[in-house]
Amino acid sequence: MAKIQVDLARATRLLQPAPLALVTAKFRDKANVMVAAWTMNCSHNPPMAALAVYPARFTHDLIVKSGQFALNIPPRPLLETVKKIAETSGEDVDKFVANKLTLYEGKQVNAPLIVECIGHLECGVVDTLRLGSHTLFFAEIVAAAADELAFDGERWTLADKSVKPLHHLGGDGYGVLEAIEAKH
Amino acid sequence: MAKIQVDLARATRLLQPAPLALVTAKFRDKANVMVAAWTMNCSHNPPMAALAVYPARFTHDLIVKSGQFALNIPPRPLLETVKKIAETSGEDVDKFVANKLTLYEGKQVNAPLIVECIGHLECGVVDTLRLGSHTLFFAEIVAAAADELAFDGERWTLADKSVKPLHHLGGDGYGVLEAIEAKH
Repeated sequence: MAKIQVDLARATRLLQPAPLALVTAKFRDKANVMVAAWTMNCSHNPPMAALAVYPARFTHDLIVKSGQFALNIPPRPLLETVKKIAETSGEDVDKFVANKLTLYEGKQVNAPLIVECIGHLECGVVDTLRLGSHTLFFAEIVAAAADELAFDGERWTLADKSVKPLHHLGGDGYGVLEAIEAKH
Repeated sequence: MAKIQVDLARATRLLQPAPLALVTAKFRDKANVMVAAWTMNCSHNPPMAALAVYPARFTHDLIVKSGQFALNIPPRPLLETVKKIAETSGEDVDKFVANKLTLYEGKQVNAPLIVECIGHLECGVVDTLRLGSHTLFFAEIVAAAADELAFDGERWTLADKSVKPLHHLGGDGYGVLEAIEAKH
């Protein structure tokens, strides 16, 4: 899968239909990955994303301490891996190794990017809000990349199952998007 | 379409795959509806949702002044209506009348609910954050309802096209979810 850089003016398109994300973060010698359905775009200019994380999560502390994270968008073939990541804590096991994920370094933030994912948003935290059960992190998107078959520079192509992002319905329910053909 | 009340402990499931929402709000004799892709759950207990709105929007002021809004989830057949709503401002035209939408009153908040939609979250604003290009509203979900064919009390059924929520891909691109069958 060849990755292309995504123009920052179009970076929010990666999150536009709100696919599931694998959130990665690193502080000193500790790194982790968690599954997040609770993300959204929250600004066009500068491009910004919001992420809600339960405070007891190992990744929560890594984001608080490092002030940065990455959102990696997993494709349909990674569903079983996504489920395994959701079921384990990074305090007990190295989830990158356990799930045979290949890592590479971000361009702008010190959080590992996951090669097997089809989209990447590198995020620098600019504000934090503790509200209800979760902590909200608001971050500027400082770099973005995507698989060239999965994302055409403007939007997700949904070209075939192998390059479709995942969506969570709740519990064990997941889905993928089908494009609606425009009426002419 | 028969609507059922949704247990507040499951209300966040309506937003879990982040479908498009028609945001309604009312202040005194002014009411409006706008399309929003930028929503997310942000707390389980109490159930809370976040909504990002561009400050120049007419609906923005209605939410600021009334402190409440509703998220109405439109189904696939409402796509053309959604596009029309997105293209017009409520300052110029009554978008409910222009789009022949049927309204009914919320149980908890003073914002009109749209009968033709398949899910409804009534939201009371508890915090606001101005960040980047948008205003973020954080709201407690105080009542929720859904079409009984579209939502089974636990998650969206995706049973057929007429009861599938819409997702925005960017620009003129929209999609609907297909459930992934569990492997056994």
